[in-house]
Amino acid sequence: MDVLNWSLARRTLFAAFFAVVTAFGSGVVSAEDAKRDTLPSWNDTAPKQAIVDFVSRVTKEGGADYVPPPERIAVFDNDGTLWAEQPVYFQLAFAIDRIAALAPEHPDWEKTPPFEDILKGDLKAVAASGEHGLLEIIAATHSGMTTEKFAAIVDGWLARAQHPRFHRLYTDLVYQPMLELLVYLRANGFKTFIVSGGGVEFMRSFADRVYGIPPEQVVGSSGVVKFEMPADGKPVLMKEPKVEFVDDGPGKPVGINRFIGRRPIFAFGNSDGDLQMLQWTAAGGGLRFMGLVHHTDAEREWAYDRHSAVGKLDKALDEATAKGWTVVDMKTDWNVVFPPER
Amino acid sequence: MDVLNWSLARRTLFAAFFAVVTAFGSGVVSAEDAKRDTLPSWNDTAPKQAIVDFVSRVTKEGGADYVPPPERIAVFDNDGTLWAEQPVYFQLAFAIDRIAALAPEHPDWEKTPPFEDILKGDLKAVAASGEHGLLEIIAATHSGMTTEKFAAIVDGWLARAQHPRFHRLYTDLVYQPMLELLVYLRANGFKTFIVSGGGVEFMRSFADRVYGIPPEQVVGSSGVVKFEMPADGKPVLMKEPKVEFVDDGPGKPVGINRFIGRRPIFAFGNSDGDLQMLQWTAAGGGLRFMGLVHHTDAEREWAYDRHSAVGKLDKALDEATAKGWTVVDMKTDWNVVFPPER
Repeated sequence: MDVLNWSLARRTLFAAFFAVVTAFGSGVVSAEDAKRDTLPSWNDTAPKQAIVDFVSRVTKEGGADYVPPPERIAVFDNDGTLWAEQPVYFQLAFAIDRIAALAPEHPDWEKTPPFEDILKGDLKAVAASGEHGLLEIIAATHSGMTTEKFAAIVDGWLARAQHPRFHRLYTDLVYQPMLELLVYLRANGFKTFIVSGGGVEFMRSFADRVYGIPPEQVVGSSGVVKFEMPADGKPVLMKEPKVEFVDDGPGKPVGINRFIGRRPIFAFGNSDGDLQMLQWTAAGGGLRFMGLVHHTDAEREWAYDRHSAVGKLDKALDEATAKGWTVVDMKTDWNVVFPPER
Repeated sequence: MDVLNWSLARRTLFAAFFAVVTAFGSGVVSAEDAKRDTLPSWNDTAPKQAIVDFVSRVTKEGGADYVPPPERIAVFDNDGTLWAEQPVYFQLAFAIDRIAALAPEHPDWEKTPPFEDILKGDLKAVAASGEHGLLEIIAATHSGMTTEKFAAIVDGWLARAQHPRFHRLYTDLVYQPMLELLVYLRANGFKTFIVSGGGVEFMRSFADRVYGIPPEQVVGSSGVVKFEMPADGKPVLMKEPKVEFVDDGPGKPVGINRFIGRRPIFAFGNSDGDLQMLQWTAAGGGLRFMGLVHHTDAEREWAYDRHSAVGKLDKALDEATAKGWTVVDMKTDWNVVFPPER
């Protein structure tokens, strides 16, 4: 187990336990919509202008900033950038719900931390159980089954689980302006990727349906998976209780190199975990776009940044300011946050 | 260091040292060519018929075997399947040439195995140096530099190095029938991927130009890469002398799960290292295509299978026969092997 990776894993996931931070069905945006009215949920403020200006310049054939379509790689963080991440990362909400669902099969959990703490709803005690506790939660909910079984469990959860504040499906709590941005970029020859600290198999369960991003364009954290050939001759891939790769912070450019193999020209994040991805994008030649979603809207969503345990935005905000990257002020720049209720 | 991975790495790469197994510029096939004359370099024998029949059935809308385009994932091994692999894997030829090129900067190599053995051309002694020797060769030639520097070195080598038997660029020794097959599949809505034991960064240097397969659709073995921020504020990715992932044998379905995230419906290999990829492909629901290139043509290419140290084809050949997978007899089924000389 790589200590650095575990430190990152802890930072990524455990922060959620400490957080006490406590609108509108599925957002479908067609290419036609994107042509008719570009980015309708974005107000006509600086971020929209910066996006449209960037896209116009890199797509103008013969222009000084022209970028051929294959090089138009756009990467997006997921939690806090494409969908909400409060009061806890949605994948952690999944893990907590799974512990509760599995508890009847594990009577010993009633007296075993961190499971007993989860079952009592005592997240502070869960947090106090440290890395070892996290490992047990992830192992109990994300391994010991085939990849297909895991995908079916996630599908079932996403189809039913409700967010505690909005009482909507988690996949409804995606940002309508970002859905429009994804469509707009693809309509302009970009290939859109997710590059997120979230689990890659968890995100692939909904990324195509919700964002139009196919499984092969989702980069995320992963556990070890093992090929097994049972006696029936039908091979399976078993998920093991070991972390393999944490796609966060400096892991993001590494993940981009490993999975995509070329440098993005467009990157969007919302937290310090995205800083190195933005730096890596910025360091390429030619015109580049670096963007951050700044959560400033406690009424329609949440307001948090430098002192938040979930999605902390501190160093990256300073660097964005210093370097003139685009910072979206959710309250001011978006006229809609979530897609309308169906 | 994972022992299993090292065992696989050794099998994959070291075999080359033991091998003493001892046509026509760049093959460009346009989509137009593919429509005019489907697979012209394939004789009208069983493999071509099986390919065309499979593609016709999965693309027939309303048919019982119809597969929607996003699910039309086709995976290809590289060494021995898309390009030749004799007398040694081409990436190993690159490493050997690099040792020779770097030798003036390392006078100690003249008396240090395995470098001295390479410099003397004594590949048997190199092989005798075992895993430790291999690690040193890979470390000396594939790490200690940025990803960009490595790509530039590979580009330079590919532009100049000549194959010892054919006296052509290595990228000219690709199989013309397979180039046609890639174009034919893409023209029919397939997304084509490489899934190979070769180094992912090595293959990405030429896969787009030679096969029309972009970097983000190349899955391969990899070393650890680290994000670094130098004092000048321009981040780099440094290649470290540690193996991270060996995409061979059971590693191939694992790599497919990790990088592609869905199961292929079409898979082509040529050796036992492809067996699990073929089994994983075959185990999905609906119509599937599994193919093997059988090297049977010592005159135009090479003839080898069960007892070859490079590209050993033994168990997979038995399983293909037992299960009715397609086996291409290079001598009989291909009327051209390599693209014509420019």
